[in-house]
Amino acid sequence: MAVQYFEDFAPGQVYRSGTVAVDAAAIKRYAAEYDPQPFHLDEDAAARSFFGGLAASGWHTASLTMRLLVDSELKPAGGIVGAGLDEFRWPRPVRPGDVLRVESEVLEARPSQSRPAQGLVKLRVTTLNQNGEPVLVMVPNLVVPRRET
Amino acid sequence: MAVQYFEDFAPGQVYRSGTVAVDAAAIKRYAAEYDPQPFHLDEDAAARSFFGGLAASGWHTASLTMRLLVDSELKPAGGIVGAGLDEFRWPRPVRPGDVLRVESEVLEARPSQSRPAQGLVKLRVTTLNQNGEPVLVMVPNLVVPRRET
Repeated sequence: MAVQYFEDFAPGQVYRSGTVAVDAAAIKRYAAEYDPQPFHLDEDAAARSFFGGLAASGWHTASLTMRLLVDSELKPAGGIVGAGLDEFRWPRPVRPGDVLRVESEVLEARPSQSRPAQGLVKLRVTTLNQNGEPVLVMVPNLVVPRRET
Repeated sequence: MAVQYFEDFAPGQVYRSGTVAVDAAAIKRYAAEYDPQPFHLDEDAAARSFFGGLAASGWHTASLTMRLLVDSELKPAGGIVGAGLDEFRWPRPVRPGDVLRVESEVLEARPSQSRPAQGLVKLRVTTLNQNGEPVLVMVPNLVVPRRET
């Protein structure tokens, strides 16, 4: 698939990803390294926690979202480089057995004031589980090169 | 260290973490699994990229930040459970050899309208490198239980 330059982005476009399945072993492996809290590591402790059962770390969900994005239809020239996020929330936890996919909708594409060779593309990235329920919603601003003319 | 309940949080408090050193191998290992873009995987490709040299994935920085938080002085009863973020940005990349630490400042503590047994604690979490420069700034809202009376 060809890469996309700033000029190729327009509001309303949707870029889709493949899927990734999340099992208890993957949840615990990420958590052991980066978020070792009981509700991400142990079913019994998780049952007694806020989550009511084993749940993926929100940062694991974010990491899996990034992997899905990198492998998705979204292929900005220069790579997926975020300047920051306008919004970031986890509407519900990711559970063992969930199958995740990502939809990225273009909200805005605007030239950079300070760097004429670049533009900023604002996306709404929604990570959905197998029931079509959002588990992560974020609004990043990507730095995207303009096509050389 | 004792855990903290909603009533223990007040604006202006700062909770500190230990440190974590980041090397090129760790950057590449995270990237290979979650963010396999050339500027996170290969020094030569990175030198020609937006980053001008090998840089950690922003989600790797976020994951390391979470690990530092879990091991920090911040010990909310019920764990570190975020309801979402008001702000999230990466002011500069993390490079091989960086040593990171986290400071969490309490911005606000307010009772939950819908759940009387909980409160929401808004923090500014700043991840700093060995030069005291911020590499990640986020403003999460944590769900924290009230002390049982």
